[in-house]
Amino acid sequence: MNKKLVNTLRGLSVDMVEEANSGHPGAPLGMAPIVSALWLRHANHDATCPTWKNRDRLVLSAGHASAILYSVLHFAGYDYTVDDLKAFRTWGSKTPGHPAYNPHLGVEITTGPLGQGIANAVGMAIAETMLAARFNRPGYPVVDHRTYALCGDGCLMEGISYEAVSLAGTLKLNKLVVIYDDNEITIEGSTDIAFKENVPLRFKAAGWRVIPVEDGNDEQQVLAALKEAETSDLPTLIVCPTTIGYGSKRAGMAKSHGEPFGKEITLDLKQNLNLSNIPFDIDKSVYDEVRPLNLQRQAKRQTWEQMFEEYRKAFPELVKEWDSFHKQPKLEDLLLDEELFKANSAFEASRNSSGKVLNLLAKKLPNLVGGSADLGPSNKTSLDGMGSYSSENRLGRNLHFGVREHAMAAICNGMAAHGGLQVYCSTFLVFSDYMKNAVRMSAMMKLPVTYVFTHDSIGVGQDGETHQPVEQLTALRSTPGLKVYRPADRLETACAWIDALTGKQATALILSRQNLNNEYPTNKNGTFKGAYLVKENAQSQAVILASGSELELAMEAEKVLGDQGIHVNVVSVPCLETFLKQDKDYIQNVLPDNLRNRVSIEAGATMPWYRLVGLDGISIGIDHYGSSADAKQLFSEYGFTVERVVQAVKSLI
Amino acid sequence: MNKKLVNTLRGLSVDMVEEANSGHPGAPLGMAPIVSALWLRHANHDATCPTWKNRDRLVLSAGHASAILYSVLHFAGYDYTVDDLKAFRTWGSKTPGHPAYNPHLGVEITTGPLGQGIANAVGMAIAETMLAARFNRPGYPVVDHRTYALCGDGCLMEGISYEAVSLAGTLKLNKLVVIYDDNEITIEGSTDIAFKENVPLRFKAAGWRVIPVEDGNDEQQVLAALKEAETSDLPTLIVCPTTIGYGSKRAGMAKSHGEPFGKEITLDLKQNLNLSNIPFDIDKSVYDEVRPLNLQRQAKRQTWEQMFEEYRKAFPELVKEWDSFHKQPKLEDLLLDEELFKANSAFEASRNSSGKVLNLLAKKLPNLVGGSADLGPSNKTSLDGMGSYSSENRLGRNLHFGVREHAMAAICNGMAAHGGLQVYCSTFLVFSDYMKNAVRMSAMMKLPVTYVFTHDSIGVGQDGETHQPVEQLTALRSTPGLKVYRPADRLETACAWIDALTGKQATALILSRQNLNNEYPTNKNGTFKGAYLVKENAQSQAVILASGSELELAMEAEKVLGDQGIHVNVVSVPCLETFLKQDKDYIQNVLPDNLRNRVSIEAGATMPWYRLVGLDGISIGIDHYGSSADAKQLFSEYGFTVERVVQAVKSLI
Repeated sequence: MNKKLVNTLRGLSVDMVEEANSGHPGAPLGMAPIVSALWLRHANHDATCPTWKNRDRLVLSAGHASAILYSVLHFAGYDYTVDDLKAFRTWGSKTPGHPAYNPHLGVEITTGPLGQGIANAVGMAIAETMLAARFNRPGYPVVDHRTYALCGDGCLMEGISYEAVSLAGTLKLNKLVVIYDDNEITIEGSTDIAFKENVPLRFKAAGWRVIPVEDGNDEQQVLAALKEAETSDLPTLIVCPTTIGYGSKRAGMAKSHGEPFGKEITLDLKQNLNLSNIPFDIDKSVYDEVRPLNLQRQAKRQTWEQMFEEYRKAFPELVKEWDSFHKQPKLEDLLLDEELFKANSAFEASRNSSGKVLNLLAKKLPNLVGGSADLGPSNKTSLDGMGSYSSENRLGRNLHFGVREHAMAAICNGMAAHGGLQVYCSTFLVFSDYMKNAVRMSAMMKLPVTYVFTHDSIGVGQDGETHQPVEQLTALRSTPGLKVYRPADRLETACAWIDALTGKQATALILSRQNLNNEYPTNKNGTFKGAYLVKENAQSQAVILASGSELELAMEAEKVLGDQGIHVNVVSVPCLETFLKQDKDYIQNVLPDNLRNRVSIEAGATMPWYRLVGLDGISIGIDHYGSSADAKQLFSEYGFTVERVVQAVKSLI
Repeated sequence: MNKKLVNTLRGLSVDMVEEANSGHPGAPLGMAPIVSALWLRHANHDATCPTWKNRDRLVLSAGHASAILYSVLHFAGYDYTVDDLKAFRTWGSKTPGHPAYNPHLGVEITTGPLGQGIANAVGMAIAETMLAARFNRPGYPVVDHRTYALCGDGCLMEGISYEAVSLAGTLKLNKLVVIYDDNEITIEGSTDIAFKENVPLRFKAAGWRVIPVEDGNDEQQVLAALKEAETSDLPTLIVCPTTIGYGSKRAGMAKSHGEPFGKEITLDLKQNLNLSNIPFDIDKSVYDEVRPLNLQRQAKRQTWEQMFEEYRKAFPELVKEWDSFHKQPKLEDLLLDEELFKANSAFEASRNSSGKVLNLLAKKLPNLVGGSADLGPSNKTSLDGMGSYSSENRLGRNLHFGVREHAMAAICNGMAAHGGLQVYCSTFLVFSDYMKNAVRMSAMMKLPVTYVFTHDSIGVGQDGETHQPVEQLTALRSTPGLKVYRPADRLETACAWIDALTGKQATALILSRQNLNNEYPTNKNGTFKGAYLVKENAQSQAVILASGSELELAMEAEKVLGDQGIHVNVVSVPCLETFLKQDKDYIQNVLPDNLRNRVSIEAGATMPWYRLVGLDGISIGIDHYGSSADAKQLFSEYGFTVERVVQAVKSLI
């Protein structure tokens, strides 16, 4: 096989890093033959229709090697000009330092934080099996693609990769292929200093097939392994021994990983690889070589389109469903369903309200799937009668993620990025800590993943300080692009679910273990605005703000104060960030600027509330760890009492 | 072997859960023979001197099984009365729902968040090897103990456990023994639904020895395995097949995991196990059985004490060092060293300042050890000339954690809890997300672990949004008990390090990639108070607050405003939480209550700052994701400019 193409990819990657004077030349040099074999010669995708639903998915889990991805996408015909490549890592470019989710440009998911790409790929592979099981018919394999992840040692050292690999093995995701760029180098030196494990054996232990490639620098061998992987009934790891910084004076050295080579080493590399020493000077023959490959892939996609047209005729009802699977539901449609909002009892934990709302929604939305990190019975996230997803039942809608929070979130990102499904996942709020970065990635990519975090405070009770969240709400609320709802009752819980499923953002639902009071006059419009008056009194002297379980305290305090002739307003704040985005008039109406006697109540860190109560108000919260005791006692010991709220208000007026 | 003891442990554990009407009966019933064999018959420890430095360490990684731990510690003679056991999971008791760090009570580390215990144990085993290498002399094995971790399926599914196991294998920690309570049940059902991996093979892949026990319910077999483990030159996994809920009608059922049995099932269990049906009614014979075991262990400890007395005579200098290893350095001693504070250049990144301070401190403090999650060269946390810790060099002081942030933090917790060492670890600030819960555990336990988080903002530059922290500072600052420093220059960086090493808390140092200005009049006293005036003007009309890299902006804006006749104060805020704990007078002095024209500047989420700027101030920050571009351009594009600050101040006055 002509080496010109591979070496051109190498030269281009290094030119990009040099031009940016920033980036990672080492991995692209080592991985070039792999990426070329996989994405130019082997996989199914088509730059003329980048969002083709049955395309193979590519996840560059080792996101720092982005230069090779952009280079190969350029030759594959995606919308990257040489000028785009020159703009690598600069303001406003299409070619940021780490790949940023944009399927129209061939980037299936944002990567960079190591290990997550493998879990993303597992999610994409799960989505493929679910959609295939639902939509394929004999002779019409409308969903039939593979998912490829490229990873290095860093990804494989991260715990999330093991979590994802273990689940993928259990689920026998045979169309998932992970390609391991085995270069034996990490930033601090040889992998021997910290990573001596037997990687093939590890994958076998997890139920994977392992295909070793003798020389990862040989495109032909890589191609043969990719073909062999297609015959596997297990997920496959292809181990490709490579040389970081291949062809350069820094070959095999940690120093080649993350800094530009500089002129001298670059020129030497170009000479070694028989390339022009002019930056970005691409030999026309390389374009000639890739053109027929690109056309072949395009033809394959067109064949699929023809099949889909026949399928459309043969199964019009299925295609209607297919279309609905590929759209989010509409807010106005869901709002019409009064059953969603109606509480069945005066007192109910919001996790239970959520469970009921979720099950009602799941009946309406056949593409709503999800699960828990082994806490389904506690999170109330099981879909009744909708089966467990497994290697034997790809139609099951309940996912069992195991005790793997981080992988769970990243798998959901992969499923959401794949398209065709609405996904949610759940655990205790305190364990949002275990998955935080993947939640951040959902928010960053604006993927509509719904996180159900129950057991939202010291209301956890006897399990004690390790299980009682304090600062987690603050962490989530300060995460850009994440909507965080802490609903006070069934109605607000239903609104939160509806917003989560119809919005273009990731959403976290923060839910109680203990019962909440369903008898307050909460309302939909207010909930969607993030905060609103639940109790308004003429000539109020103060305002009490509360979320979730603490709305009850606020309402009770208002009564007691009223009996004493002190009038206060009560504001329910289900979604603080949303409220802050309302127009001035609305905010002024709910929280008049001159009404400075403000008390907030929330069983969590006080930090988020000073934005609303300011320097003159009081924030009742908990800025220390909890304890192991009955929840009611904890609320009382830690000052979440009507008396304390009343006293706080009085101290202000 | 008499089964009375083991069954009594079982009965007691179930009685505790029944009395509390809350807790986890299933695991204690299955694990009782293992815990009895290990902690009553096999391991070296002594309730009459619980903090004996050479005791074996026990980590109940499956912390929800706490009832069995308290039961066994009761019989081993630790300070738990039957009344303490009855007070299980109640307010103020010694027996919280999950074990809480208290070596005086035989609890070596707080557990509950799954998987972390295994990493804690790895840390303890590392500490043992380091201290042994340093202090043991022929004939005087003063440090020579084992570390045991008990874990279940949940722990083994968590990514952190793989990370820790992989590193332990690489490091050949042969005195580490993990005992796997293999009961094939998780909360959602059989482990088959999510966890089919071959656990023994997985550990072998990671370089461990695996000892299978045929029947984990047979104390004799468990004992034999524990003895065999002592001959290993690799870390050892003992696989014990057990039955969750053993002896009860819920044996083998997920339902036995996390809820009380109720009267009927409990009485039936008691009958099956031949126990009194009166709760907490302990047969005297059981105490008779354990008494000689406890005395044997006490005798072993006394033998060690005798050896240590001889060692003291033979190696007085070593014992002096030993004593210093087991104490934290004193604040006043470190403050005397002017070199720590003196900047070597006018402009220096705080990560570089930190690297210099750290290296100076490491020369003074021979028990200061630490490392990075494969970012040492970027975090500037390498100790020059102090060697790499490895299986061949236990005296090396640089730890190579690999790309394993979560395990790194939990390993540091284990090392700190072990005692004898001062530990730090490091990664990029954005990846604090990967390790958050373990950082929380440091803070909760008040372990003096130092976290070095560099690349603290959009100052990261070209690596882009995935690598640019935004909300991480907020998450850390809202974590109770964690001190978060974002120093503005070399002096503040030195103060932060000194506070971290001399304080009784976990500390995070948030450091810049880019250069900071070392020429402002920062000061030590102010830094230790968390915030202070760096520039005070008579009749100031406004105050600008800033931390870290943004102090420069504040100082420059002050100048520009001054030239326009507008006088403002500038407050440096290296540690916001510490400032808020100062007395009213101090706070009033720095931030007079009537000076409400306040502007804060920090290249991170604005949330923490409203506590200081209130409703009438302006917080300049970044509440969205960053971008891939040159850092200077990013600061400018996102409004971190002198002009913007000047304009903000003017808009207020």
